[in-house]
Amino acid sequence: MYVIEPIGFVRSELRRLEDAPMQGDEGAPEAWLELTQPAAPGLMGITIQDELILLTWFHLAERDVLQVHPRGDINRPLAGVFATRSPDRPNPVGLHRVKVLEVEEQRLRVAPLEAIDGTPIIDIKPVLTASTSER
Amino acid sequence: MYVIEPIGFVRSELRRLEDAPMQGDEGAPEAWLELTQPAAPGLMGITIQDELILLTWFHLAERDVLQVHPRGDINRPLAGVFATRSPDRPNPVGLHRVKVLEVEEQRLRVAPLEAIDGTPIIDIKPVLTASTSER
Repeated sequence: MYVIEPIGFVRSELRRLEDAPMQGDEGAPEAWLELTQPAAPGLMGITIQDELILLTWFHLAERDVLQVHPRGDINRPLAGVFATRSPDRPNPVGLHRVKVLEVEEQRLRVAPLEAIDGTPIIDIKPVLTASTSER
Repeated sequence: MYVIEPIGFVRSELRRLEDAPMQGDEGAPEAWLELTQPAAPGLMGITIQDELILLTWFHLAERDVLQVHPRGDINRPLAGVFATRSPDRPNPVGLHRVKVLEVEEQRLRVAPLEAIDGTPIIDIKPVLTASTSER
């Protein structure tokens, strides 16, 4: 058993789950990633145009779900949650690929992001490409 | 504050951190992902050749580290952990892209994986591609 403390929170115009697209590339808006004061030094070296992997905690997810109809469509056969991107799963970690638009001392402006306002941020990592795999 | 319960554990020939490559594409071996009995139904629908994102918990990481010399090279300037793939970070979630080689009821054989034997697994997700984004 491990304990996660958020390193920050998403600030977005998306206020309700029903307004959020299922994936970032399905019309999601930009958003701010606001870090907590203790975590902010971890941003050093992130610059505009960087591609990041954002890990969030789907705090509204149901954690006792192991099989779902993909994308909530009951006409589709049940699948294990690990074969889908369902937010309902035992450890509801969200994975989002975003681009950095603006960098401040304690926050980043990024896009696109389908997570709603207030979603806890648990980690940020660089996308590994030929030019960044040495980081 | 959120609590994570592992859904399984990595079984690998890599026994010690010093034997593990820094990234999966740096010569990492194959490994088994052994799920706990309660989590196993979540594997339904995963098949051979699937590309998966594996999320692990770096249980040996130092969680109070916010800046590091990339890849442990003291000749390189300090960077925030969120600009690197350092395992030492506030919430030490590991991200690994693997291919499925074999599927059993409660475990998957995958490659390549740089995580050592006993590393807790916290989530498994499909890689989103044109053909799988509908899952």
